[in-house]
Amino acid sequence: MLLRMSTLLLKTLREEPADAEVPSHRLLVRAGFVRRAAPGGYTWLPLGKLVLDRVVAVVQEEMVTAGGQEISFPALLPREPYETSGRWTEYGDDIFTLKDRRGADHLLAPTHEEMVTLLVQDMTGSYRDFPLILFQIQTKFRDEARPRGGLLRGREFLMKDAYSFDLTDTGLTEAYARMRAAYQRIFTRLGLEHSIVSAVSGAMGGSASEEFLATAEVGEDTYVGCTVCDYAANTEAVTTPAPPAREVTAAPTAVHDTPGTPTIASLVELANERALGGRTDWTAADTLKNVVVTVQHPGREPELLAIGLPGDREVDLKRLNAALAPATAVLFDGFDARPDLVKGYIGPQGIKIRYLADPRVAPGTAWLTGANEPGRHATDVVCGRDFTPDGTIEAAEVRPGDPCPACGDGSLTMRRGIEIGHIFQLGRRYTDAFKVDVLGADGKPARPTMGCYGIGLSRAVAAVAEQHHDDRGLIWPDSIAPADVHIVAAGKDGQVEAALTLAGTLSKAGLRVLVDDRPNVSAGVKFTDAELIGIPRCVVVGRRLPEGYVEVRDRRTQERKEVPLVDVSGVMTAELG
Amino acid sequence: MLLRMSTLLLKTLREEPADAEVPSHRLLVRAGFVRRAAPGGYTWLPLGKLVLDRVVAVVQEEMVTAGGQEISFPALLPREPYETSGRWTEYGDDIFTLKDRRGADHLLAPTHEEMVTLLVQDMTGSYRDFPLILFQIQTKFRDEARPRGGLLRGREFLMKDAYSFDLTDTGLTEAYARMRAAYQRIFTRLGLEHSIVSAVSGAMGGSASEEFLATAEVGEDTYVGCTVCDYAANTEAVTTPAPPAREVTAAPTAVHDTPGTPTIASLVELANERALGGRTDWTAADTLKNVVVTVQHPGREPELLAIGLPGDREVDLKRLNAALAPATAVLFDGFDARPDLVKGYIGPQGIKIRYLADPRVAPGTAWLTGANEPGRHATDVVCGRDFTPDGTIEAAEVRPGDPCPACGDGSLTMRRGIEIGHIFQLGRRYTDAFKVDVLGADGKPARPTMGCYGIGLSRAVAAVAEQHHDDRGLIWPDSIAPADVHIVAAGKDGQVEAALTLAGTLSKAGLRVLVDDRPNVSAGVKFTDAELIGIPRCVVVGRRLPEGYVEVRDRRTQERKEVPLVDVSGVMTAELG
Repeated sequence: MLLRMSTLLLKTLREEPADAEVPSHRLLVRAGFVRRAAPGGYTWLPLGKLVLDRVVAVVQEEMVTAGGQEISFPALLPREPYETSGRWTEYGDDIFTLKDRRGADHLLAPTHEEMVTLLVQDMTGSYRDFPLILFQIQTKFRDEARPRGGLLRGREFLMKDAYSFDLTDTGLTEAYARMRAAYQRIFTRLGLEHSIVSAVSGAMGGSASEEFLATAEVGEDTYVGCTVCDYAANTEAVTTPAPPAREVTAAPTAVHDTPGTPTIASLVELANERALGGRTDWTAADTLKNVVVTVQHPGREPELLAIGLPGDREVDLKRLNAALAPATAVLFDGFDARPDLVKGYIGPQGIKIRYLADPRVAPGTAWLTGANEPGRHATDVVCGRDFTPDGTIEAAEVRPGDPCPACGDGSLTMRRGIEIGHIFQLGRRYTDAFKVDVLGADGKPARPTMGCYGIGLSRAVAAVAEQHHDDRGLIWPDSIAPADVHIVAAGKDGQVEAALTLAGTLSKAGLRVLVDDRPNVSAGVKFTDAELIGIPRCVVVGRRLPEGYVEVRDRRTQERKEVPLVDVSGVMTAELG
Repeated sequence: MLLRMSTLLLKTLREEPADAEVPSHRLLVRAGFVRRAAPGGYTWLPLGKLVLDRVVAVVQEEMVTAGGQEISFPALLPREPYETSGRWTEYGDDIFTLKDRRGADHLLAPTHEEMVTLLVQDMTGSYRDFPLILFQIQTKFRDEARPRGGLLRGREFLMKDAYSFDLTDTGLTEAYARMRAAYQRIFTRLGLEHSIVSAVSGAMGGSASEEFLATAEVGEDTYVGCTVCDYAANTEAVTTPAPPAREVTAAPTAVHDTPGTPTIASLVELANERALGGRTDWTAADTLKNVVVTVQHPGREPELLAIGLPGDREVDLKRLNAALAPATAVLFDGFDARPDLVKGYIGPQGIKIRYLADPRVAPGTAWLTGANEPGRHATDVVCGRDFTPDGTIEAAEVRPGDPCPACGDGSLTMRRGIEIGHIFQLGRRYTDAFKVDVLGADGKPARPTMGCYGIGLSRAVAAVAEQHHDDRGLIWPDSIAPADVHIVAAGKDGQVEAALTLAGTLSKAGLRVLVDDRPNVSAGVKFTDAELIGIPRCVVVGRRLPEGYVEVRDRRTQERKEVPLVDVSGVMTAELG
């Protein structure tokens, strides 16, 4: 490959683009890799397209190595299969829908679980056809409420989606492990530092699920890690270690007048002032906060639900919704019509709606909580004695310093990352929905179990840019750089000709070469552009050319060395293995 | 590449798919290359995806050789730029439109003239940035009224669209010629026999335009060729040689009673019976037929237009509409309200609406035509003497045997083809619409002129299948076959192991190998599948294996020869160059 900057469609920018909030966006636009074309829609310019193609090639290769077969589904699909699976409704405004000229409903498919399930139903018949891993690389469309960060969250993006089909749960576990390993190889090859975090599955359905998050300050995803072990999880997926059940030693419940204490802070202040239960060391953690929410289950009447949690924690609506999915919850605000729910003074004793408690509200724990009467609270309300929750729920916020649920020794820290991959053990949600059965090895019908596996390819380009840049510009890893070497003709006295000759030589040796042969551009501008574009190594054909020397610069280390012109090809091919 | 049929997602069909009308559709489905997923939407299965990828690679290579730079635009775009160019309205129901969550109008772009013009406006500034050829390979969506022929006319398909920008008309002519030559190389490499036919530009706008049509009986496009020279054109683009102007020798116009002759046939019969004008050799070609149509110009009031043509020809509405584009015409049916237009008896003498004539209605020609009174016709109505058309129009049907407009010696024959490519000299329609000016070499503003160039990549796969098959199945050209060689393990006594070993050897030698290692499939079924799938050469590992021989079969010629196992790799690599 030999690209000449004198003819390349490239215009580098000195100014920061006004709408760019994050470094990858700023640099990819400034260096001429992408350009905004629509809200959340970017045009890949020649240099960007080269990078994207290399990312695609890495992913294709690793998918095939992992046993994947590449196919390609239509993106525009009729409503029916998505209606059958329930996703037409679940995705709501997040997908683009449209009507064709006959008025039939269609969607631009977010992913293809339905279609791949129907395809497998159509094309397989027996256990001999399994296991199966299918993948495609396709432009996806999502109606993001707030596109942001350039390629990080757009309305149109390139994605690799893969689907595994197995007849046994063990088979699914193995396919999942194989894809997980392939993902680790992919992201390592792309030069992406990443964490694998436990996740919840959301609208995809299914059980086990992990996200691959590229470490980045600008990442939208917050996750927690352990200070001791390698535990990592989305906050939605963090589980709270329950204290062991304990003997009840508390006194019987006593009810106290606590006027004007509808908040935890006002309650703790008054409890200490009045030495409720003989104590003056009340803290928010000793109180039991009860939050009422309205839960909307798909296709059912709304339900009132109370969440009990220690008073020093807030309900995290993202965690609550993840715990309730596919139902969704909002805070209840109809207290006027429910005199049994006394706002600010609710207690779990005798509560008439469903009541789920934080795992810390364990059997035997005693709490200061509402007495279900205006201006009154109760002490020594004991879980398991005075009330019994209908179950536990992970709805309380996760905080730095919380104990690690995996090792128990470490504590949790908060980190940020960019979601670049997501793998799911879906199970039989879709094969059940479409009633897919094949002949099992035992002669009986067997229903396949599925996994699905996604990588955001355009987002991965942005994540690499996020992790690999400095003040001067981008610094591409060799694996996906738009070129292996950037040759700069620094002067006008024969340097352009020499640079083009060298470019031809290196290109013939199999290297990908970008040569700056622009006739009316100063050496300074060329160097600035080279650093902005970020090809890993740069050869400057400059003033020592008459002596037969050129300068080789390493973009990352900024190291420079003089190399005889005749040795450049050998040095470069050796470096690139 | 090494593909094993024991694990490949493949199910060949013995039955013809019920909805398949054309050979390519039937065979691509039966051989497991594609499968219907939606109305006009096909899934590419593993073998089909390999073919499509190879087509893409050929096109990319030739585009880069022709000086093209690859980019990629979003497919989902806001309405505004297409409103500016007028194409939002022009395309009408043929494009898919949708609203985003904010209610803003979007479309799935049919092609990207608007966006590429805006991009060039944004990224160039001076004559030094030209010439420029940009291309992309992208999934396109069109709301076809009647998807048909499988991949031949779908609602979702893969397309290569390219755009050239030049500052001079000569530059555009050169870019057009370069792309035309690239297209010839591409279709030759794909093994596609094709004609290059003159075309009209339709909704794209612009001037010169040619279509590349793959010769095929099932083709939707009818075109004409010359029996003598290499002239070829769409019927819409055929021009009619005008007879030279002649002296007027005809007698003065005479009006005759011709009751009950509203049709040409009835008029000719009566004219001969009554020897009108002293002749009894009247034919339809001697009469002048006048057809009234209602013309709808975009954004204007409908206009009545009369078309004059020899009575032995019908108006071809497709040719008429092509001649009037972007206006559209339908037959007029409001004669009751227009007493000046006497249905069946219209003549051009003194007609009060715009009148355009076929080129055969040349100055000096004399006609038998309507007298603009019920039941009356006139003889010796002479063009240029008794009436003067407002212009000429190409609206008459083209017929086999018509003289060739190019050489004048040959006559026209009708042929059918599949449109696989279309090239246009657009001119400045889009740069005018977006007011794109750059600094010219003379220091003055210069407006770039454009060409656009499309290839239907998925349709090209179908066209290849249409041209390359026999009764037994597909016969892929080497350039895009899913594999170079198909190895069949014909027996069970070690043949599968030997086939796999040979497959490994050939694959390591750089060949693309498909090996039929299915354990529970008979040799007969394997041979039938191999012929259906159509890899150019097949190696049968069969009963002569113990003696060290295999059979090599040529799919196209059906030739078979025994080859020593040790020589197979050498023979194959030599064949593939």
